[in-house]
Parts: sequence; C-alpha cells; structure tokens
Amino acid sequence: MEPLSDARIVESWSRNAIPWTEAVRGGQILSRERVTNQAIIETVLRQAPASVLDMGCGEGWLSRALVAKGIRVLGVDAIGALVERARGAGGGEFRQLSYEAIAEGALDVAMDAVVCNFSLLGEASVEALLAAVPDLLNPGGTLMIQTLHPVEACGDAPYTDGWRPGSWSGFSDAFSDPAPWYFRTLESWVALLNRCGLRLSAMREPLHPDTGRPASVIFVVKPVLFVQTGSLTG
Amino acid sequence: MEPLSDARIVESWSRNAIPWTEAVRGGQILSRERVTNQAIIETVLRQAPASVLDMGCGEGWLSRALVAKGIRVLGVDAIGALVERARGAGGGEFRQLSYEAIAEGALDVAMDAVVCNFSLLGEASVEALLAAVPDLLNPGGTLMIQTLHPVEACGDAPYTDGWRPGSWSGFSDAFSDPAPWYFRTLESWVALLNRCGLRLSAMREPLHPDTGRPASVIFVVKPVLFVQTGSLTG
Repeated sequence: MEPLSDARIVESWSRNAIPWTEAVRGGQILSRERVTNQAIIETVLRQAPASVLDMGCGEGWLSRALVAKGIRVLGVDAIGALVERARGAGGGEFRQLSYEAIAEGALDVAMDAVVCNFSLLGEASVEALLAAVPDLLNPGGTLMIQTLHPVEACGDAPYTDGWRPGSWSGFSDAFSDPAPWYFRTLESWVALLNRCGLRLSAMREPLHPDTGRPASVIFVVKPVLFVQTGSLTG
Repeated sequence: MEPLSDARIVESWSRNAIPWTEAVRGGQILSRERVTNQAIIETVLRQAPASVLDMGCGEGWLSRALVAKGIRVLGVDAIGALVERARGAGGGEFRQLSYEAIAEGALDVAMDAVVCNFSLLGEASVEALLAAVPDLLNPGGTLMIQTLHPVEACGDAPYTDGWRPGSWSGFSDAFSDPAPWYFRTLESWVALLNRCGLRLSAMREPLHPDTGRPASVIFVVKPVLFVQTGSLTG
C-alpha cells in the first residue's frame, strides 16, 4: 500500500481505534478540550439545524453532544471499530460507510447540516465526498468543516498542497503507525469547495487562549443556488 | 487628531506622497517587485474585464499596467498629491475622491472589476466603501482585494481585529510619520464581505519564493445575486 494515500489513512485509524476512543473520552486532547470541541458545537448550533450528518464521526462524541441539544444526528465513519464504539455509547444513529461509498450515492439522506470535524484527512476521497455533499443537504442547508488552520499547521514545510507524514507526538504509547494526511492551503480549500458547488459564507478562526493564535479553522459553506432561467421566463 | 484613525491614514499618506512615488517607481519595495504586483495583475486579467476601477490607485502603477493590456481604467485615490503624480505619468484616467465620498455615492460608474491593491487600510472608511462596491459593478462583475495575509502579518500581537501602529522600516529616511492600519483576521474579512452583500469566490495566497510562505492574500469576490421572488411568481 502507498505510504501516503487515502487507503493508508483508513488502515491507520482502524489500528488506533481503541486508544483513540480512550484519548477522546478521557479528555486527553487538550486543544479539543480547550478550544475546538466547543467551537464546532457553537458553529453547528448557530445554524439551528433539526438534523445533522456527522461525517467521519469517529467514536461519536460530537453526535452525542448534538443529540443532547435535541438534534437528530446520523454519524457515519469508515472505521468499523469506531462505529461500534459510537453505537456502544448510545445517542445518535451510526452507520459504517466509506467516503468513497458516500460519494457514489450509498447514503440516501437529506439533512439540515453536514459537519466534518477534523475528519477530512485525505486527497481524492475528500474531493469525491465534498462533491456529493450538496445532494445530502436540505434546501438552505449548511456544511461545516473544522480542520487544522493551514497557515498555522504548515510548520517548516513549504506552504503548498501535498501529503504529509503523520505523527502521534503528544499521545500515549498505545498509538502506532500514524496516518498520513493531505495538506491543503486556504486557497486550495476555497477552490475545492467552489469546484463542488459550495460557497464559503463564513470562516471561523477559534483562538487558543494560551497563544492568542488560531487553533483551527472552520469553513461554513452553502451550496450555490441554481436558478433555472427557464423557470423565470417560462 | 486620533493617532489611530481613518483620518490619520490620509494625513500620513499625503505627507509621504513624494517618497512613496519614488519608492514604487524605483522598484524599491521588493515583495511587490518579486511577488504581489504580478499576482494582482494576473488575478485581474483572469477575469478578462473590459473596465477596471483601481480603488486607492496611489501613483497609478497598476492602472498603467492594466491600460497597457487594453483595459479601460479609472483610478481613484483620496490623496491629491498621488492623483497628481498618477495623471502626470499618463495611462488611465484619475480622480481624487475619498472612500467616504465614494461610499456616499460620489462615483457614478459601473465597471467590470473593482480592484483594491493594498489600499484598504482603515476601519470605518473601508466598511462604508465595501458596502458601496456592489453598486459600482456591472452584472457579473468582480471585486479583487489584495492585502497583507493576516496570519502571516499578525506578528507578536494577538490575532484579533484592531488598530496597529505603522512603520516605515525598510524604507528610506525620506519617509516620516507612518500611517496606522486596521488589522482584520481572515474571519473578519470574510464576515465584512458578507455583510456588504459580497461572497468570496476565490482566495489566492501568492507565495514568496524565499520563504515559501504567503506574501499576501487576494480575495476574489462577487456580489450576491438577489433573486426577487416577486418576479418569479408574478
């Protein structure tokens, strides 16, 4: 298997499903506890959706948090071991589905919101998935993506799109074989969304209280309205 | 006069009009020569406009560059001494107008593109100006804004909106009394554009060849299409 590929991401997360679940549920990921969990919850609630698709739900914490607010949530994830743990914790409905399957139409739902919380890690799989998002949204629906802030997360590598090796630095010894991830510049994120018929309506930059700098970026996105000129004049 | 205010920006640039003109025409501003001049020209040409409003044109270099490509250009600037120098160099038509006057409707034109190249420096003046931009554009027209990349230009100050003192560091001794500028986060730029009925359709991040990092950001923006529902059903 290619060391830097979409398939490797799924393989690595399958291998780390148990320690990951423990880390999330134990509140071990400090930037999430202090900043980004609350930021994505607030961003979703501001849209006041009745139904949410939690895309790449992992062990399900966000689905549970939104269900607790009275929202109907469907969580989907490619990793069977994570979906199993999400089901085990209850709250929300969970399905195992790969992004490739969803891109091919395997998910026949229409939701008020789709949320991808640090779950868009690949290259081709993400592009195919995002192209399918408009079909998963009710009219007026919203896609929200939280991801690493490219300018902050770039590190010493050049600020250009490309695969980056993963790291479990800061995590326990129970983790192994970190997943690679595909780095996108802000320019590329906006361009990708546009190619998928989606337009940025807001971009949030939740600040880390220690550094005063963005801990992540959240894209709030709406499908482009297609006005059929035939219906205007006919 | 308030030391950090829109009015102080105009005063400072009036005072520095002559050395500024020399610096621009002498190719003394290296990031412009190496990256950002070409980036804004390419971004404008990609839209293939027949007419361009060069907002905050300064001594007029961008107007001249676009006129040389066969585009009809009107340059406007609040600083009389800069407009005078722009007229003196020929190429394009130039008018002295403040952003406040334009916001109040003093400019009765409709152009294919409006371009603001490092010329949106203030707080209230910029907000009022941008609200007026949709009225200055032909249908299908485009606004392009090049500015400092907030994440890169933030420095050690917190990443939050606010006035910053100016500096002529790197410029000759002929400069004095630097203009303050109003820092906006990316989140705030996108939100401001949205409040003005404008939607981001692309965001360019021209890279500096020495650092491999963004030398600026360019927002490519379109007015929101207003569909009057009355005309759909009536």
